[in-house]
Amino acid sequence: MPKPKAIAIVSGGLDSVTLAYKLAAEGYRLHLLSFDYGQRHRREIEGAEAAAAALGADFDRIDLSGIKRLLHGSALTDDRIAVPHGHYAAPTMAATVVPNRNAMMLAIAYAVAVAEGALVVATGVHAGDHFVYPDCRPGFVEAFDAMQVQAVEGFGHPNLRLVAPFVHSTKAEIVAEGHRLGVPFAATWSCYEGGDRHCGRCGTCVERIEAFALAGVADPTPYEEIAHV
Amino acid sequence: MPKPKAIAIVSGGLDSVTLAYKLAAEGYRLHLLSFDYGQRHRREIEGAEAAAAALGADFDRIDLSGIKRLLHGSALTDDRIAVPHGHYAAPTMAATVVPNRNAMMLAIAYAVAVAEGALVVATGVHAGDHFVYPDCRPGFVEAFDAMQVQAVEGFGHPNLRLVAPFVHSTKAEIVAEGHRLGVPFAATWSCYEGGDRHCGRCGTCVERIEAFALAGVADPTPYEEIAHV
Repeated sequence: MPKPKAIAIVSGGLDSVTLAYKLAAEGYRLHLLSFDYGQRHRREIEGAEAAAAALGADFDRIDLSGIKRLLHGSALTDDRIAVPHGHYAAPTMAATVVPNRNAMMLAIAYAVAVAEGALVVATGVHAGDHFVYPDCRPGFVEAFDAMQVQAVEGFGHPNLRLVAPFVHSTKAEIVAEGHRLGVPFAATWSCYEGGDRHCGRCGTCVERIEAFALAGVADPTPYEEIAHV
Repeated sequence: MPKPKAIAIVSGGLDSVTLAYKLAAEGYRLHLLSFDYGQRHRREIEGAEAAAAALGADFDRIDLSGIKRLLHGSALTDDRIAVPHGHYAAPTMAATVVPNRNAMMLAIAYAVAVAEGALVVATGVHAGDHFVYPDCRPGFVEAFDAMQVQAVEGFGHPNLRLVAPFVHSTKAEIVAEGHRLGVPFAATWSCYEGGDRHCGRCGTCVERIEAFALAGVADPTPYEEIAHV
């Protein structure tokens, strides 16, 4: 019997790369999708490509950069807005919200899942995202799955479901799980600034540093500097 | 007080162009979105541009053509699969399903709606679509709205809602409404073949011909030939 197939949205950050390793360990054939929506840190996608190569997964980079100019107001896609520094859960991080990003990526992932007869669509959203990103919360994940259930049976794939195994996990728990799974963390990318090295000061760098420390796992990331927040 | 804004998905077909005219008549400022997902009848988008120009609406053509190669299996995006001829509600029309097309387009429309502070997202799905397209059914529309309610309050737009005013209407009823609203039907495009003129034989041409006849409205469309089905 062939292995079941999973379509996973993988940005190249440590959460989604750990998701890919977890699905591979659970026996899924994988097709990883990365999205270029004009984010300034699109170099993160190299982390997804590296994970696909390491896991023998199919990989596609999906170009949504044409909608960047319509998504004004986010520091991730609008060059006129600075990436906020400080703690990931701070109100200033609202500037990094990209409107409806997860719904857009998930809807495209479901299209691919229907075309390929996959059994699951997977997303690496986690509990640390809930403060800032409404489209990472459990209620959103459940409602998205329910919406797709309405459509996918009609598309001939009644068993296709959304999985979000980290939706109740902290980032430190993901680091611990990734460590057990042998995730090469140095090949993952978090920093929103998208420079040559992780800046160490933006919200997602601070969150990354904190997660390794809390998990008690050595952080292999070279940072420009380490913020004390 | 400024007029409320609506983001409408307009393919350039007669349903969605009538939708745009209806929203304009109801007093909305309009931003029309058309999607190029590699459909062979992408010339339909000219109908959307003409409607935007006539209504003084903002217009954007969103390029999703990069995902065409991932959406194999549909006659609309796969050049190796012929467009079926015959009645729109026939089982053969399953070949024209594009997996998850409406969820993809709606998710992007919601992103634009959040970025622009719109009050509604609008889609022209109608009752005649229900046989073939699961993502045009009332249950899908309700579930999509419920999914976005989970996200849009967190994005700061708690009142943003999905409207689908034709979800229980036949195409003949839409023709009748468009006629009342002064829709220039000759500038709308239905044919899936995407040739120089409407073919008159594919499912959506047959449906178009039938709708004008049932509505008792003169059909201004030049067809290659009229199928008798």
